[in-house]
Amino acid sequence: MEATAAPSRHAQGCAASPPSGQEEKSPPERSVYMDYNATTPLEPAVVQAVTEAMREAWGNPSSPHPAGRKAKDVINAARESVAKMIGASVQDIVFTSGGTESNNWVLHSVVTHFHKTHASEGDVAKRPGPAEGAMPHIVTCTVEHDSIRLPLERMVERGEAEVTFVPVSPASGRVEADDVLAAVRPATCLVTIMLANNETGVVMPVPEISRRVRALNRARAACGRPAALLHSDAAQALGKRRVDVQDLDVDLLTIVGHKFYGPRIGALYVRGLGERTPLYPVLFGGGQERSFRPGTENTPMIAGLGKAAELVTETCEADEAHMRGVRDYLEERLLAEFGKKKIHLNSQFPGTERLPNTCNFSFLGPQLQGRAVLAQCRVLQASVGAACHSDHGDQPSPVLLSCGIPFDVARNALRLSVGRHTSRAEVDLAVQDLRQAVARLGGLDGPASGV
Amino acid sequence: MEATAAPSRHAQGCAASPPSGQEEKSPPERSVYMDYNATTPLEPAVVQAVTEAMREAWGNPSSPHPAGRKAKDVINAARESVAKMIGASVQDIVFTSGGTESNNWVLHSVVTHFHKTHASEGDVAKRPGPAEGAMPHIVTCTVEHDSIRLPLERMVERGEAEVTFVPVSPASGRVEADDVLAAVRPATCLVTIMLANNETGVVMPVPEISRRVRALNRARAACGRPAALLHSDAAQALGKRRVDVQDLDVDLLTIVGHKFYGPRIGALYVRGLGERTPLYPVLFGGGQERSFRPGTENTPMIAGLGKAAELVTETCEADEAHMRGVRDYLEERLLAEFGKKKIHLNSQFPGTERLPNTCNFSFLGPQLQGRAVLAQCRVLQASVGAACHSDHGDQPSPVLLSCGIPFDVARNALRLSVGRHTSRAEVDLAVQDLRQAVARLGGLDGPASGV
Repeated sequence: MEATAAPSRHAQGCAASPPSGQEEKSPPERSVYMDYNATTPLEPAVVQAVTEAMREAWGNPSSPHPAGRKAKDVINAARESVAKMIGASVQDIVFTSGGTESNNWVLHSVVTHFHKTHASEGDVAKRPGPAEGAMPHIVTCTVEHDSIRLPLERMVERGEAEVTFVPVSPASGRVEADDVLAAVRPATCLVTIMLANNETGVVMPVPEISRRVRALNRARAACGRPAALLHSDAAQALGKRRVDVQDLDVDLLTIVGHKFYGPRIGALYVRGLGERTPLYPVLFGGGQERSFRPGTENTPMIAGLGKAAELVTETCEADEAHMRGVRDYLEERLLAEFGKKKIHLNSQFPGTERLPNTCNFSFLGPQLQGRAVLAQCRVLQASVGAACHSDHGDQPSPVLLSCGIPFDVARNALRLSVGRHTSRAEVDLAVQDLRQAVARLGGLDGPASGV
Repeated sequence: MEATAAPSRHAQGCAASPPSGQEEKSPPERSVYMDYNATTPLEPAVVQAVTEAMREAWGNPSSPHPAGRKAKDVINAARESVAKMIGASVQDIVFTSGGTESNNWVLHSVVTHFHKTHASEGDVAKRPGPAEGAMPHIVTCTVEHDSIRLPLERMVERGEAEVTFVPVSPASGRVEADDVLAAVRPATCLVTIMLANNETGVVMPVPEISRRVRALNRARAACGRPAALLHSDAAQALGKRRVDVQDLDVDLLTIVGHKFYGPRIGALYVRGLGERTPLYPVLFGGGQERSFRPGTENTPMIAGLGKAAELVTETCEADEAHMRGVRDYLEERLLAEFGKKKIHLNSQFPGTERLPNTCNFSFLGPQLQGRAVLAQCRVLQASVGAACHSDHGDQPSPVLLSCGIPFDVARNALRLSVGRHTSRAEVDLAVQDLRQAVARLGGLDGPASGV
């Protein structure tokens, strides 16, 4: 779309400037941000919504006087926007402090419900042992975010739950519905599979998994046994592709504002909250969010989340097409610049859908570890994987290894993720920057470097 | 100080306008906000700090590139400001989503530590029973915020802990150190006493309690037994009086931004975090906050919390004097306007320190329930107690009943809490408004109404 040399707003501003609407003249240094999977800049309209709420809706939403009612109105409007973004009922949205809380909460809730249900049925002692049926079982996959993986591992360590981590297929980069279904047991109370992976962008077959788990649940219902709930962490998918809880047919969905140009809070979707789907609080206190999530509401950030959700509803389809065009252009340019022998695209699996914005690739060569290449870059801001693993040294990404990427290739991986405002001109700058970085590392020798 | 008739910024602006620095002409309706214990408007400098961080420090603080480092720097600076506000070491501050999370976390952590310590000592089975010494015991008081009371009640219900709720003294309105100490048992692992009560403003004798628990701990140490930790919820005290963790000598302190003109997040102070004082996470995920509190950091709100803390450090002493003057003027005016027979001041206990900003009083008379009076007010925005109890109907506040206030008086209670910008002119408007409200309710008959 934008094939001219004029860099976009992101390319012109300094490293940490989001789209401001004001073009800066002669910036001290150009910067190209391609780490939108780590976080996104806040849209100006979101900044405005947060700021307005800070100025005008600062009352305590629980206060019955005008200052409080104004804040409550802002929260209700934002809840509607968030619900609309994912095709949910407004009463099924609870605001949280972020995706980590939402994910941990889902796991806490289903395990608590399992123990409570089984304790009330009298089929186990106060603390059920690990016998089949007396212990909740959760099915997930090996490439989930740490806010799913770590609490699950801890539950296993503490003997609170059993967990099956279903491996992703090296052929498709995704977890296959067959494998997920094969892992389901009578005591399975939750299947949690992310909607899209943060490192590869691979989209998981959540609708198919849901359809098949629903079929199992119908059989369970016929025997009077409780259903297995379906959860998906949609942190990376929202804003990049259509996310509709009816199509996905999930019971629970994790929403994270800062991945779609919104603020650093989140939400949890719960189908038929508290009625069809039980929800057990982690925190106890002042009764906010119908006592499911107490604590004085973060009105300004909630207002910003609502605004960001509105923007997603309005522009997601166009953004998806734009990002796909820019990302595909990026991959073409990388292959053209470095040649197929020097580049391995780590997330192109035949027949597998992936996010439109994510390009995970490796330069092939012994000195070309991802971190080393990025350290040589002058304008490109990107990552080697999840931001929260940025201190893991030169260990290759477990996600890529799970997807069948060889060790030496995985160790060299770079994740470039573009955004709704990324331009082709920025891609050109990034590729040029990478070329110079690789050259400085002595990685352009040999025929593979030819263009 | 400000005895003229000119209303201050708050009195002039509409209900939900914080101090903006811009005087509005001919506002549609005057409003006097006296509910600063429910929440405070954000200071303009705080709004600016949050907005700047949204624009300039939006990177993921875990990202090693410039956008991420900028965010990390903002967070580190804010942590220093928060630490300085309470005389703490910077590494002893963890950011949380708010006071409810901080309070719940403290309780979770001490109980987890107790079970872990006892399990590793092998003196109990995997799940300790309620025998003395095998079950953690917590001492608190009867007038704590729901974010202390409710999680404790739940722990008792679930057989996870034993709790002593020490009553406050009707003579002093505060919990007495003697009574707290008398409740401490060998298995007591935590004493948690709020620094100041949100409804009465009564300041609890935390330094004395700490001093005496420390003495017990020295005796315990001599026998090789673990110490009882000391926690205080300082939500209502910060910004209203000096709060210094060295003077208080507590191990844990809850910090809540929106009570001191800051944003809707919080922090937890932990003395010698993870070394001297153990801290067990509630959430598991990406390793942020040294893995004690994972989740991508809410940089803008953290920046705002830092700015609000800076302002407290700079102006707390002057604010305290100002608020005390205005609050005392309010109580004088109430007594002058309504007469001693018509007014009961609910939080004046001889010899007891109270917050400088809080006035809890009742109109005496059968039709003068707090809610009814407020409903008749045209400009005053105040409350009958904690905002999160605003839907409790006409039930009198359990806090006031605990303090020995008679049922009929407690049912009529109003809590007026002034702020650092409240003026005497606003007090005059509020008292005039209350007079008209009480008159409309037929409460000005008889000699008690004389001025």
